[in-house]
Amino acid sequence: MKKPLILVTNDDGITAPGLRNLVNFMAEIGDVVVVAPDSPQSGMGHAITIDNTLYVKQMKINSLPNLQQEYSCSGTPADCVKLALQEILDRKPDICVSGINHGSNSSINVIYSGTMSAAIEAGIEGVPAIGFSLCDFSWEANFKAAKKHIITIVSEALTNGIPKGVVLNVNIPKLEEKEIKGVKICRQARANWKEKFDKRTNPMGKDYYWLTGEFELLDKGEDTDEWALSQGYISVVPTQFDLTAHHAIHHINNWNLNEH
Amino acid sequence: MKKPLILVTNDDGITAPGLRNLVNFMAEIGDVVVVAPDSPQSGMGHAITIDNTLYVKQMKINSLPNLQQEYSCSGTPADCVKLALQEILDRKPDICVSGINHGSNSSINVIYSGTMSAAIEAGIEGVPAIGFSLCDFSWEANFKAAKKHIITIVSEALTNGIPKGVVLNVNIPKLEEKEIKGVKICRQARANWKEKFDKRTNPMGKDYYWLTGEFELLDKGEDTDEWALSQGYISVVPTQFDLTAHHAIHHINNWNLNEH
Repeated sequence: MKKPLILVTNDDGITAPGLRNLVNFMAEIGDVVVVAPDSPQSGMGHAITIDNTLYVKQMKINSLPNLQQEYSCSGTPADCVKLALQEILDRKPDICVSGINHGSNSSINVIYSGTMSAAIEAGIEGVPAIGFSLCDFSWEANFKAAKKHIITIVSEALTNGIPKGVVLNVNIPKLEEKEIKGVKICRQARANWKEKFDKRTNPMGKDYYWLTGEFELLDKGEDTDEWALSQGYISVVPTQFDLTAHHAIHHINNWNLNEH
Repeated sequence: MKKPLILVTNDDGITAPGLRNLVNFMAEIGDVVVVAPDSPQSGMGHAITIDNTLYVKQMKINSLPNLQQEYSCSGTPADCVKLALQEILDRKPDICVSGINHGSNSSINVIYSGTMSAAIEAGIEGVPAIGFSLCDFSWEANFKAAKKHIITIVSEALTNGIPKGVVLNVNIPKLEEKEIKGVKICRQARANWKEKFDKRTNPMGKDYYWLTGEFELLDKGEDTDEWALSQGYISVVPTQFDLTAHHAIHHINNWNLNEH
Protein backbone atom coordinates (compact mmCIF):
# COMPACT_ATOMS: atom_id res chain seq x y z
CA MET A 1 0.00 0.00 0.00
CA LYS A 2 1.18 3.49 -0.88
CA LYS A 3 2.13 5.58 2.12
CA PRO A 4 -0.56 8.13 2.96
CA LEU A 5 0.19 11.86 2.75
CA ILE A 6 -0.62 13.40 6.13
CA LEU A 7 -1.04 17.17 6.68
CA VAL A 8 -0.30 18.15 10.29
CA THR A 9 -1.36 21.47 11.80
CA ASN A 10 -2.45 22.92 15.15
CA ASP A 11 -3.32 26.12 16.96
CA ASP A 12 -0.58 26.26 19.62
CA GLY A 13 2.11 27.01 17.02
CA ILE A 14 4.65 24.98 15.08
CA THR A 15 7.06 24.49 18.00
CA ALA A 16 4.42 23.32 20.54
CA PRO A 17 5.21 19.92 22.13
CA GLY A 18 1.73 18.66 21.23
CA LEU A 19 2.41 19.19 17.51
CA ARG A 20 5.96 17.82 17.68
CA ASN A 21 4.60 14.62 19.24
CA LEU A 22 1.85 14.31 16.63
CA VAL A 23 4.44 14.77 13.86
CA ASN A 24 6.52 11.95 15.34
CA PHE A 25 3.52 9.61 15.56
CA MET A 26 2.35 10.37 12.03
CA ALA A 27 5.83 9.87 10.57
CA GLU A 28 5.47 6.22 11.63
CA ILE A 29 2.51 5.66 9.30
CA GLY A 30 2.85 8.12 6.42
CA ASP A 31 4.60 10.99 4.68
CA VAL A 32 4.14 14.12 6.75
CA VAL A 33 3.90 17.77 5.72
CA VAL A 34 3.47 20.39 8.48
CA VAL A 35 1.81 23.79 7.94
CA ALA A 36 1.19 25.40 11.31
CA PRO A 37 0.88 28.88 12.84
CA ASP A 38 4.12 30.69 13.72
CA SER A 39 2.59 31.76 17.07
CA PRO A 40 -0.10 30.51 19.45
CA GLN A 41 -3.67 30.88 18.12
CA SER A 42 -5.74 29.38 20.91
CA GLY A 43 -9.34 30.49 21.15
CA MET A 44 -9.31 31.70 17.54
CA GLY A 45 -12.43 29.75 16.62
CA HIS A 46 -12.83 29.61 12.87
CA ALA A 47 -11.15 32.96 12.25
CA ILE A 48 -9.60 33.63 8.85
CA THR A 49 -7.34 36.47 7.72
CA ILE A 50 -9.20 38.59 5.20
CA ASP A 51 -7.85 42.05 5.80
CA ASN A 52 -4.19 41.34 6.40
CA THR A 53 -1.19 39.78 4.66
CA LEU A 54 -0.09 36.17 5.21
CA TYR A 55 3.56 35.15 5.46
CA VAL A 56 4.80 31.58 4.99
CA LYS A 57 8.26 30.37 6.00
CA GLN A 58 9.89 27.01 5.33
CA MET A 59 11.28 25.54 8.57
CA LYS A 60 13.58 22.70 9.57
CA ILE A 61 12.78 21.64 13.13
CA ASN A 62 12.90 17.84 13.22
CA SER A 63 14.82 15.41 11.11
CA LEU A 64 12.66 12.35 10.53
CA PRO A 65 12.73 10.05 7.49
CA ASN A 66 9.07 10.65 6.55
CA LEU A 67 8.86 14.32 7.46
CA GLN A 68 8.89 15.95 4.05
CA GLN A 69 8.53 19.65 4.69
CA GLU A 70 7.52 22.08 7.40
CA TYR A 71 6.10 25.58 7.02
CA SER A 72 5.11 28.18 9.56
CA CYS A 73 2.39 30.68 8.67
CA SER A 74 1.52 34.07 10.13
CA GLY A 75 -2.22 33.37 9.97
CA THR A 76 -4.85 31.41 11.85
CA PRO A 77 -5.23 27.60 11.92
CA ALA A 78 -7.90 27.81 9.19
CA ASP A 79 -5.54 29.98 7.09
CA CYS A 80 -2.82 27.31 7.45
CA VAL A 81 -5.08 24.62 6.03
CA LYS A 82 -6.21 26.84 3.17
CA LEU A 83 -2.60 27.69 2.31
CA ALA A 84 -1.50 24.06 2.58
CA LEU A 85 -4.23 22.78 0.28
CA GLN A 86 -4.06 25.56 -2.33
CA GLU A 87 -0.45 26.69 -2.37
CA ILE A 88 1.92 24.31 -0.64
CA LEU A 89 0.90 20.69 -1.33
CA ASP A 90 1.25 19.17 -4.79
CA ARG A 91 -1.60 16.76 -4.17
CA LYS A 92 -4.59 16.48 -1.87
CA PRO A 93 -3.52 14.92 1.44
CA ASP A 94 -5.10 11.61 2.46
CA ILE A 95 -5.86 13.03 5.87
CA CYS A 96 -5.35 16.20 7.93
CA VAL A 97 -4.62 15.90 11.65
CA SER A 98 -4.65 18.91 13.96
CA GLY A 99 -3.13 19.08 17.44
CA ILE A 100 -2.29 17.63 19.79
CA ASN A 101 -3.91 20.59 21.53
CA HIS A 102 -2.63 21.62 24.94
CA GLY A 103 -6.03 21.54 26.67
CA SER A 104 -9.49 20.10 26.21
CA ASN A 105 -11.70 20.72 23.19
CA SER A 106 -14.52 18.53 24.41
CA SER A 107 -18.13 19.63 24.71
CA ILE A 108 -18.85 23.31 23.92
CA ASN A 109 -15.10 24.05 23.70
CA VAL A 110 -15.25 22.77 20.11
CA ILE A 111 -16.89 26.10 19.18
CA TYR A 112 -13.93 28.21 20.37
CA SER A 113 -11.22 25.80 19.26
CA GLY A 114 -8.53 26.74 16.79
CA THR A 115 -7.44 23.08 16.69
CA MET A 116 -10.87 21.98 15.54
CA SER A 117 -11.27 24.94 13.18
CA ALA A 118 -8.24 23.67 11.24
CA ALA A 119 -9.72 20.16 11.07
CA ILE A 120 -13.14 21.54 10.09
CA GLU A 121 -11.57 23.70 7.36
CA ALA A 122 -9.95 20.56 5.90
CA GLY A 123 -13.31 18.76 6.14
CA ILE A 124 -15.07 21.60 4.28
CA GLU A 125 -12.48 21.24 1.51
CA GLY A 126 -13.15 17.50 1.24
CA VAL A 127 -10.09 16.21 3.15
CA PRO A 128 -10.73 13.63 5.93
CA ALA A 129 -9.74 15.32 9.16
CA ILE A 130 -9.28 14.74 12.88
CA GLY A 131 -8.54 17.15 15.73
CA PHE A 132 -6.68 15.77 18.76
CA SER A 133 -6.63 17.42 22.18
CA LEU A 134 -5.14 16.39 25.51
CA CYS A 135 -6.99 17.51 28.65
CA ASP A 136 -3.82 19.01 30.12
CA PHE A 137 -2.73 22.61 29.53
CA SER A 138 0.84 22.01 30.64
CA TRP A 139 3.66 22.43 28.13
CA GLU A 140 5.23 19.32 29.74
CA ALA A 141 2.08 17.19 29.41
CA ASN A 142 2.40 13.47 28.66
CA PHE A 143 1.52 13.32 24.97
CA LYS A 144 2.99 9.85 24.54
CA ALA A 145 0.45 8.06 26.77
CA ALA A 146 -2.12 8.08 23.97
CA LYS A 147 0.29 7.38 21.12
CA LYS A 148 -1.01 3.91 20.25
CA HIS A 149 -4.63 5.12 20.31
CA ILE A 150 -3.86 8.13 18.11
CA ILE A 151 -2.12 5.93 15.56
CA THR A 152 -5.06 3.46 15.64
CA ILE A 153 -7.67 6.21 15.17
CA VAL A 154 -5.80 7.73 12.21
CA SER A 155 -5.16 4.29 10.65
CA GLU A 156 -8.81 3.29 10.99
CA ALA A 157 -9.90 6.61 9.49
CA LEU A 158 -7.56 6.00 6.53
CA THR A 159 -8.87 2.44 6.11
CA ASN A 160 -12.60 3.04 6.58
CA GLY A 161 -12.97 6.66 5.48
CA ILE A 162 -14.68 9.36 7.50
CA PRO A 163 -18.26 10.05 6.34
CA LYS A 164 -18.57 13.11 4.09
CA GLY A 165 -19.27 16.34 5.96
CA VAL A 166 -17.94 14.86 9.22
CA VAL A 167 -14.75 15.70 11.14
CA LEU A 168 -13.60 13.84 14.26
CA ASN A 169 -13.08 15.66 17.55
CA VAL A 170 -10.82 13.45 19.70
CA ASN A 171 -10.10 14.30 23.34
CA ILE A 172 -7.64 12.42 25.51
CA PRO A 173 -7.89 12.27 29.31
CA LYS A 174 -4.91 13.35 31.42
CA LEU A 175 -3.84 9.83 32.40
CA GLU A 176 -0.88 7.49 32.19
CA GLU A 177 -0.83 5.03 29.28
CA LYS A 178 -1.98 2.02 31.33
CA GLU A 179 -4.84 4.04 32.89
CA ILE A 180 -6.48 4.88 29.54
CA LYS A 181 -9.38 2.42 29.24
CA GLY A 182 -9.95 2.69 25.50
CA VAL A 183 -11.86 4.78 22.95
CA LYS A 184 -15.56 5.73 23.01
CA ILE A 185 -17.64 7.29 20.22
CA CYS A 186 -19.72 10.02 21.85
CA ARG A 187 -22.00 12.96 21.36
CA GLN A 188 -21.01 16.51 22.38
CA ALA A 189 -22.03 17.17 26.00
CA ARG A 190 -24.24 20.18 26.73
CA ALA A 191 -22.23 22.69 28.71
CA ASN A 192 -21.19 26.31 28.83
CA TRP A 193 -18.69 28.59 30.54
CA LYS A 194 -19.75 30.70 33.49
CA GLU A 195 -17.66 33.75 32.71
CA LYS A 196 -16.07 35.81 35.35
CA PHE A 197 -14.43 39.04 34.30
CA ASP A 198 -11.46 40.05 36.39
CA LYS A 199 -11.62 43.87 36.37
CA ARG A 200 -8.35 45.76 36.90
CA THR A 201 -6.99 49.26 36.43
CA ASN A 202 -3.94 49.83 34.24
CA PRO A 203 -1.02 52.12 35.24
CA MET A 204 -2.67 54.92 33.25
CA GLY A 205 -5.83 54.67 35.36
CA LYS A 206 -7.98 53.00 32.72
CA ASP A 207 -10.14 49.97 33.60
CA TYR A 208 -9.73 46.72 31.71
CA TYR A 209 -10.88 43.13 31.99
CA TRP A 210 -9.43 39.65 31.82
CA LEU A 211 -11.82 36.95 30.62
CA THR A 212 -11.87 33.99 33.00
CA GLY A 213 -14.53 31.43 33.73
CA GLU A 214 -15.62 28.07 35.00
CA PHE A 215 -16.78 25.18 32.90
CA GLU A 216 -20.37 24.22 33.71
CA LEU A 217 -21.55 20.76 32.60
CA LEU A 218 -25.31 20.75 31.95
CA ASP A 219 -25.58 17.15 30.74
CA LYS A 220 -25.95 13.97 32.79
CA GLY A 221 -25.90 11.62 29.77
CA GLU A 222 -23.54 8.65 29.77
CA ASP A 223 -23.07 8.89 26.01
CA THR A 224 -21.23 12.23 26.03
CA ASP A 225 -17.58 13.14 25.58
CA GLU A 226 -17.41 14.59 29.10
CA TRP A 227 -18.71 11.35 30.59
CA ALA A 228 -16.27 9.21 28.59
CA LEU A 229 -13.31 11.40 29.64
CA SER A 230 -14.40 11.28 33.29
CA GLN A 231 -14.39 7.47 33.08
CA GLY A 232 -10.87 7.27 31.62
CA TYR A 233 -11.78 6.86 27.95
CA ILE A 234 -10.60 8.78 24.91
CA SER A 235 -13.69 10.50 23.43
CA VAL A 236 -14.36 10.68 19.69
CA VAL A 237 -17.20 13.00 18.65
CA PRO A 238 -18.14 12.98 14.96
CA THR A 239 -18.67 16.69 14.30
CA GLN A 240 -20.40 18.39 11.38
CA PHE A 241 -20.21 21.80 9.74
CA ASP A 242 -23.77 21.74 8.42
CA LEU A 243 -25.15 23.65 11.39
CA THR A 244 -28.81 23.34 10.33
CA ALA A 245 -31.07 22.45 13.27
CA HIS A 246 -33.41 20.36 11.10
CA HIS A 247 -35.72 19.60 14.04
CA ALA A 248 -36.44 23.33 14.42
CA ILE A 249 -37.54 24.00 10.84
CA HIS A 250 -41.10 22.78 11.47
CA HIS A 251 -41.44 24.90 14.63
CA ILE A 252 -40.34 28.07 12.88
CA ASN A 253 -42.49 27.35 9.83
CA ASN A 254 -45.47 27.89 12.14
CA TRP A 255 -44.44 31.47 12.87
CA ASN A 256 -46.38 34.21 11.19
CA LEU A 257 -43.56 35.59 9.04
CA ASN A 258 -45.22 36.25 5.70
CA GLU A 259 -48.50 37.97 6.48
CA HIS A 260 -48.45 41.52 7.73
CA MET B 1 -46.92 43.94 27.73
CA LYS B 2 -43.57 44.91 29.20
CA LYS B 3 -41.10 46.18 26.63
CA PRO B 4 -38.47 43.55 25.78
CA LEU B 5 -34.81 44.20 26.55
CA ILE B 6 -32.85 43.79 23.32
CA LEU B 7 -29.06 43.39 23.20
CA VAL B 8 -27.62 44.55 19.87
CA THR B 9 -24.14 43.64 18.67
CA ASN B 10 -22.30 42.95 15.41
CA ASP B 11 -18.88 42.25 13.92
CA ASP B 12 -18.39 45.29 11.67
CA GLY B 13 -17.98 47.62 14.64
CA ILE B 14 -20.23 49.93 16.62
CA THR B 15 -20.34 52.69 14.00
CA ALA B 16 -21.19 50.43 11.04
CA PRO B 17 -24.36 51.47 9.16
CA GLY B 18 -25.72 47.92 9.45
CA LEU B 19 -25.68 48.11 13.24
CA ARG B 20 -26.99 51.68 13.35
CA ASN B 21 -29.97 50.59 11.23
CA LEU B 22 -30.62 47.54 13.42
CA VAL B 23 -30.51 49.75 16.53
CA ASN B 24 -33.11 52.06 14.98
CA PHE B 25 -35.40 49.14 14.08
CA MET B 26 -35.09 47.52 17.51
CA ALA B 27 -35.78 50.81 19.31
CA GLU B 28 -39.27 50.65 17.77
CA ILE B 29 -40.12 47.43 19.63
CA GLY B 30 -38.03 47.36 22.80
CA ASP B 31 -35.43 48.83 25.10
CA VAL B 32 -32.06 48.59 23.40
CA VAL B 33 -28.56 48.16 24.84
CA VAL B 34 -25.63 48.04 22.40
CA VAL B 35 -22.33 46.25 23.15
CA ALA B 36 -20.30 46.03 19.95
CA PRO B 37 -16.66 45.85 18.84
CA ASP B 38 -14.74 49.12 18.62
CA SER B 39 -13.26 48.03 15.26
CA PRO B 40 -14.21 45.67 12.40
CA GLN B 41 -14.02 41.96 13.33
CA SER B 42 -15.15 40.30 10.10
CA GLY B 43 -14.06 36.72 9.57
CA MET B 44 -13.30 36.29 13.27
CA GLY B 45 -15.38 33.11 13.55
CA HIS B 46 -15.98 32.24 17.17
CA ALA B 47 -12.72 33.77 18.40
CA ILE B 48 -12.49 34.86 22.05
CA THR B 49 -9.81 36.92 23.77
CA ILE B 50 -8.03 34.71 26.30
CA ASP B 51 -4.50 36.09 26.30
CA ASN B 52 -5.14 39.81 26.08
CA THR B 53 -6.89 42.58 27.98
CA LEU B 54 -10.39 43.80 27.13
CA TYR B 55 -11.37 47.46 27.22
CA VAL B 56 -14.97 48.70 27.38
CA LYS B 57 -16.02 52.27 26.68
CA GLN B 58 -19.44 53.87 27.13
CA MET B 59 -20.48 55.68 23.95
CA LYS B 60 -23.17 58.15 22.89
CA ILE B 61 -23.78 57.82 19.17
CA ASN B 62 -27.53 58.01 18.60
CA SER B 63 -30.22 59.70 20.63
CA LEU B 64 -33.32 57.53 20.54
CA PRO B 65 -36.00 57.28 23.24
CA ASN B 66 -35.52 53.51 23.80
CA LEU B 67 -31.76 53.35 23.33
CA GLN B 68 -30.58 52.95 26.91
CA GLN B 69 -26.82 52.59 26.69
CA GLU B 70 -24.07 51.88 24.18
CA TYR B 71 -20.66 50.36 24.84
CA SER B 72 -17.76 49.64 22.51
CA CYS B 73 -15.40 46.79 23.36
CA SER B 74 -11.85 46.04 22.22
CA GLY B 75 -12.58 42.32 21.83
CA THR B 76 -14.29 39.98 19.40
CA PRO B 77 -18.06 39.70 18.83
CA ALA B 78 -18.20 36.69 21.21
CA ASP B 79 -16.31 38.74 23.84
CA CYS B 80 -18.89 41.53 23.49
CA VAL B 81 -21.74 39.15 24.26
CA LYS B 82 -19.91 37.62 27.24
CA LEU B 83 -19.17 41.10 28.63
CA ALA B 84 -22.73 42.29 28.04
CA LEU B 85 -24.29 39.31 29.81
CA GLN B 86 -21.87 39.10 32.73
CA GLU B 87 -20.73 42.67 33.36
CA ILE B 88 -22.89 45.28 31.66
CA LEU B 89 -26.55 44.24 31.76
CA ASP B 90 -28.51 44.20 35.03
CA ARG B 91 -30.83 41.47 33.76
CA LYS B 92 -30.82 38.78 31.07
CA PRO B 93 -31.95 40.30 27.77
CA ASP B 94 -35.10 38.91 26.15
CA ILE B 95 -33.26 38.58 22.86
CA CYS B 96 -29.86 39.28 21.29
CA VAL B 97 -29.68 40.47 17.69
CA SER B 98 -26.41 40.68 15.79
CA GLY B 99 -25.77 42.64 12.60
CA ILE B 100 -26.94 43.76 10.21
CA ASN B 101 -23.77 42.34 8.67
CA HIS B 102 -22.32 44.01 5.59
CA GLY B 103 -22.20 40.86 3.43
CA SER B 104 -23.69 37.39 3.26
CA ASN B 105 -23.46 34.82 6.04
CA SER B 106 -25.48 32.21 4.20
CA SER B 107 -24.36 28.64 3.58
CA ILE B 108 -20.81 27.75 4.74
CA ASN B 109 -20.11 31.43 5.52
CA VAL B 110 -21.82 30.86 8.87
CA ILE B 111 -18.66 29.05 10.02
CA TYR B 112 -16.41 32.10 9.47
CA SER B 113 -18.93 34.69 10.60
CA GLY B 114 -18.30 37.03 13.50
CA THR B 115 -21.93 38.18 13.28
CA MET B 116 -23.18 34.65 13.83
CA SER B 117 -20.55 33.88 16.49
CA ALA B 118 -22.04 36.68 18.61
CA ALA B 119 -25.54 35.26 18.15
CA ILE B 120 -24.31 31.72 18.87
CA GLU B 121 -22.52 32.89 22.01
CA ALA B 122 -25.80 34.37 23.25
CA GLY B 123 -27.56 31.10 22.39
CA ILE B 124 -24.98 29.08 24.34
CA GLU B 125 -25.68 31.31 27.34
CA GLY B 126 -29.43 30.68 27.06
CA VAL B 127 -30.46 33.97 25.40
CA PRO B 128 -32.67 33.72 22.27
CA ALA B 129 -30.57 35.09 19.42
CA ILE B 130 -30.69 36.04 15.75
CA GLY B 131 -27.94 37.08 13.34
CA PHE B 132 -28.93 39.33 10.42
CA SER B 133 -26.86 39.79 7.27
CA LEU B 134 -27.46 41.70 4.07
CA CYS B 135 -25.96 40.24 0.89
CA ASP B 136 -24.28 43.53 0.02
CA PHE B 137 -20.77 44.45 1.20
CA SER B 138 -21.24 48.16 0.48
CA TRP B 139 -21.13 50.65 3.36
CA GLU B 140 -24.00 52.46 1.56
CA ALA B 141 -26.15 49.33 1.24
CA ASN B 142 -29.93 49.62 1.54
CA PHE B 143 -30.54 48.26 5.05
CA LYS B 144 -34.04 49.74 5.22
CA ALA B 145 -35.54 47.55 2.49
CA ALA B 146 -35.88 44.64 4.91
CA LYS B 147 -36.93 46.70 7.94
CA LYS B 148 -40.48 45.37 8.18
CA HIS B 149 -39.28 41.75 7.82
CA ILE B 150 -36.57 42.18 10.47
CA ILE B 151 -39.09 43.62 12.93
CA THR B 152 -41.52 40.77 12.16
CA ILE B 153 -38.85 38.07 12.65
CA VAL B 154 -37.72 39.51 15.99
CA SER B 155 -41.32 40.02 17.16
CA GLU B 156 -42.28 36.45 16.23
CA ALA B 157 -39.18 35.12 17.99
CA LEU B 158 -40.16 37.07 21.13
CA THR B 159 -43.75 35.81 20.93
CA ASN B 160 -43.11 32.15 20.07
CA GLY B 161 -39.65 31.57 21.56
CA ILE B 162 -36.71 30.09 19.67
CA PRO B 163 -36.19 26.36 20.46
CA LYS B 164 -33.43 25.76 23.02
CA GLY B 165 -30.00 25.22 21.48
CA VAL B 166 -31.04 26.97 18.26
CA VAL B 167 -29.97 30.36 16.89
CA LEU B 168 -31.41 31.93 13.74
CA ASN B 169 -29.19 32.83 10.79
CA VAL B 170 -31.10 35.38 8.67
CA ASN B 171 -29.80 36.53 5.30
CA ILE B 172 -31.40 39.28 3.25
CA PRO B 173 -31.07 39.52 -0.54
CA LYS B 174 -29.73 42.71 -2.10
CA LEU B 175 -33.08 43.95 -3.39
CA GLU B 176 -35.41 46.91 -3.11
CA GLU B 177 -38.23 46.63 -0.54
CA LYS B 178 -40.94 45.81 -3.07
CA GLU B 179 -38.77 43.13 -4.74
CA ILE B 180 -38.36 41.06 -1.53
CA LYS B 181 -40.85 38.21 -1.90
CA GLY B 182 -41.04 37.16 1.75
CA VAL B 183 -39.30 34.91 4.27
CA LYS B 184 -38.36 31.23 3.86
CA ILE B 185 -37.19 28.79 6.55
CA CYS B 186 -34.26 26.89 5.01
CA ARG B 187 -31.41 24.50 5.57
CA GLN B 188 -27.76 25.55 5.14
CA ALA B 189 -26.65 24.98 1.52
CA ARG B 190 -23.58 22.81 0.92
CA ALA B 191 -20.83 25.01 -0.47
CA ASN B 192 -17.23 25.98 -0.01
CA TRP B 193 -14.76 28.63 -1.05
CA LYS B 194 -12.30 27.93 -3.85
CA GLU B 195 -9.36 29.82 -2.43
CA LYS B 196 -6.97 31.74 -4.59
CA PHE B 197 -3.89 33.15 -2.92
CA ASP B 198 -2.64 36.32 -4.49
CA LYS B 199 1.15 36.12 -4.03
CA ARG B 200 3.11 39.39 -3.89
CA THR B 201 6.52 40.63 -2.83
CA ASN B 202 6.82 43.38 -0.23
CA PRO B 203 9.21 46.36 -0.55
CA MET B 204 11.75 44.39 1.55
CA GLY B 205 11.76 41.52 -0.97
CA LYS B 206 9.74 39.11 1.14
CA ASP B 207 6.85 37.13 -0.35
CA TYR B 208 3.39 37.36 1.15
CA TYR B 209 -0.13 36.31 0.29
CA TRP B 210 -3.62 37.79 0.20
CA LEU B 211 -6.42 35.30 0.76
CA THR B 212 -9.05 35.61 -1.96
CA GLY B 213 -11.52 33.11 -3.30
CA GLU B 214 -14.69 32.27 -5.14
CA PHE B 215 -17.85 30.90 -3.58
CA GLU B 216 -18.70 27.47 -4.96
CA LEU B 217 -22.26 26.21 -4.45
CA LEU B 218 -22.38 22.40 -4.30
CA ASP B 219 -26.08 22.06 -3.60
CA LYS B 220 -29.00 22.01 -6.07
CA GLY B 221 -31.70 21.72 -3.38
CA GLU B 222 -34.65 24.10 -3.43
CA ASP B 223 -34.88 24.10 0.36
CA THR B 224 -31.55 25.88 0.98
CA ASP B 225 -30.69 29.42 2.01
CA GLU B 226 -28.81 30.01 -1.25
CA TRP B 227 -31.85 28.97 -3.29
CA ALA B 228 -34.21 31.17 -1.27
CA LEU B 229 -31.91 34.18 -1.66
CA SER B 230 -31.55 33.57 -5.41
CA GLN B 231 -35.36 33.62 -5.69
CA GLY B 232 -35.72 36.93 -3.84
CA TYR B 233 -36.60 35.59 -0.38
CA ILE B 234 -35.08 36.34 3.00
CA SER B 235 -33.58 33.05 4.27
CA VAL B 236 -33.88 31.92 7.90
CA VAL B 237 -31.71 28.93 8.85
CA PRO B 238 -32.20 27.52 12.35
CA THR B 239 -28.60 26.86 13.41
CA GLN B 240 -27.29 24.73 16.28
CA PHE B 241 -24.11 24.63 18.34
CA ASP B 242 -24.35 20.95 19.18
CA LEU B 243 -22.08 19.92 16.31
CA THR B 244 -22.53 16.16 16.86
CA ALA B 245 -23.06 14.30 13.57
CA HIS B 246 -25.41 11.74 15.14
CA HIS B 247 -25.79 9.83 11.85
CA ALA B 248 -22.03 9.09 11.85
CA ILE B 249 -21.84 7.55 15.33
CA HIS B 250 -22.98 4.13 14.11
CA HIS B 251 -20.47 4.13 11.22
CA ILE B 252 -17.53 4.94 13.49
CA ASN B 253 -18.66 2.43 16.12
CA ASN B 254 -17.83 -0.23 13.53
CA TRP B 255 -14.19 0.83 13.41
CA ASN B 256 -11.67 -1.37 15.15
CA LEU B 257 -10.57 1.13 17.80
CA ASN B 258 -10.36 -0.93 20.97
CA GLU B 259 -8.52 -4.11 19.96
CA HIS B 260 -4.84 -3.94 19.24
